[in-house]
Amino acid sequence: MSTRGWTGQATELLRVGDGFRLSDVDPGSRPGYEGGKKDGAKDLATGIEALGELQERLFAASQVGEAHDAVLLVLQAMDSAGKGGIVRHVVGGVDPQGVSLASFKAPTDEERRHDFLWRIEKQLPEHGRIGVFDRSHYEDVLIGKVRSLAPDAEIERRYDAINEFEERVAASGTRIVKVMLHISPEEQKSRLMERLERPDKHWKYNPGDVDERMLWPQYMDAYQAVFDRTSRPGAPWHVVPADSKWYARLAVQELLLAALEDIDPQWPAADYDVEAEKARLAAS
Amino acid sequence: MSTRGWTGQATELLRVGDGFRLSDVDPGSRPGYEGGKKDGAKDLATGIEALGELQERLFAASQVGEAHDAVLLVLQAMDSAGKGGIVRHVVGGVDPQGVSLASFKAPTDEERRHDFLWRIEKQLPEHGRIGVFDRSHYEDVLIGKVRSLAPDAEIERRYDAINEFEERVAASGTRIVKVMLHISPEEQKSRLMERLERPDKHWKYNPGDVDERMLWPQYMDAYQAVFDRTSRPGAPWHVVPADSKWYARLAVQELLLAALEDIDPQWPAADYDVEAEKARLAAS
Repeated sequence: MSTRGWTGQATELLRVGDGFRLSDVDPGSRPGYEGGKKDGAKDLATGIEALGELQERLFAASQVGEAHDAVLLVLQAMDSAGKGGIVRHVVGGVDPQGVSLASFKAPTDEERRHDFLWRIEKQLPEHGRIGVFDRSHYEDVLIGKVRSLAPDAEIERRYDAINEFEERVAASGTRIVKVMLHISPEEQKSRLMERLERPDKHWKYNPGDVDERMLWPQYMDAYQAVFDRTSRPGAPWHVVPADSKWYARLAVQELLLAALEDIDPQWPAADYDVEAEKARLAAS
Repeated sequence: MSTRGWTGQATELLRVGDGFRLSDVDPGSRPGYEGGKKDGAKDLATGIEALGELQERLFAASQVGEAHDAVLLVLQAMDSAGKGGIVRHVVGGVDPQGVSLASFKAPTDEERRHDFLWRIEKQLPEHGRIGVFDRSHYEDVLIGKVRSLAPDAEIERRYDAINEFEERVAASGTRIVKVMLHISPEEQKSRLMERLERPDKHWKYNPGDVDERMLWPQYMDAYQAVFDRTSRPGAPWHVVPADSKWYARLAVQELLLAALEDIDPQWPAADYDVEAEKARLAAS
C-alpha cells in the first residue's frame, strides 16, 4: 500500500467493521489524507503509474496460466456521487486491455426470468483483469428493498445468497473491493442542479433522479442493512466520503492499489528456452 | 479533422485506393506529418482531449435514442507492430465507458462450429460506442490463407462475405476504420529481440512469433489480397507506417478523429421540461 500524502491506511480507515453506522460518516470528510486538492492531483498521477504497472504484472501472470487472481471493484452510490468519475479518472488510467467494465441498469425481461445473480456471474472478470461493476447485485437489495420490488422474504434470501456468491468468487482468486461513494443530499442537489443548468449536461439528468432523492432516508437505511448483512472478511465494504470528488478518487485508487499489492503479482518466467529463441530469431 | 502538425489529411494519404501496392509503402515513413517526436507527443495529448469530447457527445446522443452512430476501429498487423500501444495510448485516453474492446485469438471449438463472422457480429459496438477490434475477421483470410486453414474456394467466399457484412454494418450507422499497422521485418526483429532480452517482457514473446515471421512474404501477399478485395468506399483500408510508434499512434488518432468529426455528434436536447425539473429539484 502506497503512503505518499496519506497519514493512515485507507483500507483500515474506510472499512465497514462491527458496529459501523453510516450516519456517523461525514460525506465532507477526508479520512487519512491530510494534503489538499493539489497534493491529491499529484498523488493520483503517481498512483496511476503504480496501478498501471501492477495491472500489467497481474495480466502477464495470468497469460501463462500460473495465476488465477483478479480484482473486482463494486461501485454503489446515490445518483451523481461520482461513479463515472471513478471509472474515468481511476480505472481510466489503466490499460483498457486489462479492464472489464460492466454497468448494471434495470434488468431486461430475460434477466428477470433468472435469479438476480445470473447476470452478475456472466460479468465476473477473467483471471488477470480488473473488473469494475458500475452498480451491481446490490441494487437488488437497495432499490429492490426501498421500492418493494421483491417481497421481504426474498430480500432476506438475497443477503445470504450474496454472501455465499462472494465467498465463492473470493475463494476462486478474485479480490473483491466493495465501495459505497457517500455524498450528502445537499451536494447531490447542487450536482443535479448543475446538470439542469448546462445544456451539455442535460442528457445526464433524469427526472427519476429526484424521485429517488425523495427517498434518501429509506436508501440510507437500505445501505445500512447491506453493510450489516454483507460486510464480511473476504468481501468487506468501504464507505468513501465523496463530497470531495478528488478525495473519493484518491481513496478508491488506494483501495485498488492495496488489493493489487496484496496479490503481489510477479512477472512470469518464460515457458520456452530464451537463449535458443534468441538464436532462432537472430537467424530469421 | 484536426490539422495541427499535419501537412496533409491522414485519411487521404493513408487510404488504400485503386492500384495501391503494399510494397510501395515505406514502414519508416511518416506521411503527412512534418513534426518530430516531441511535436507528436504534444499533438497526441491535444488529440486525446478532442477525441474525449467527441466520444462523450457520441455517447450522449445515443443515450436519448436519437442517434444510431458508432465507430469501429479494426486493427490488423504483424506481431509487435504496436496494436497494444494503440489501444493503450490512443483508445486509452477515452472514457472507458464509451469504449468496447474485443480481442480475437484463435477461435474456440464453439466458434469453429459457426461461420467465421458469428463471433465478430457479437462483438460489434453498441450505438454511441467506439469499438476496437484487436485482430478481427481478417485473420480468417490472412493466417487462414497463409496457413491454408481453409480451402481456396472458402477464402474466396470470405472476401465477398466480409464486404456484404461490412456494408450492412456501415449502413446501420457504424463508421468502420480499418487499419493495418505496417512495420518492416528488421524493426520486428529488434522488437522481438527486446522481449527476449528483458525478463519483464518474456511473457509477451511466443516462439510461434518466429514461425509466422518466416512467412513474411506470404503474409504481405495475403494483406495485398485483402486490400484488393475489401478496400471499399464504405469501409476503406488504411496502411499506417509503424516503424515509428509515435507516428502510428498519431495517425490512428487522426483517423478516429476524422470518423467522429464526420458523424459530428450533437448534445441531445432534454426530453423533459428543464424549468419544471429545476423547480422540483429545488423543492426536494
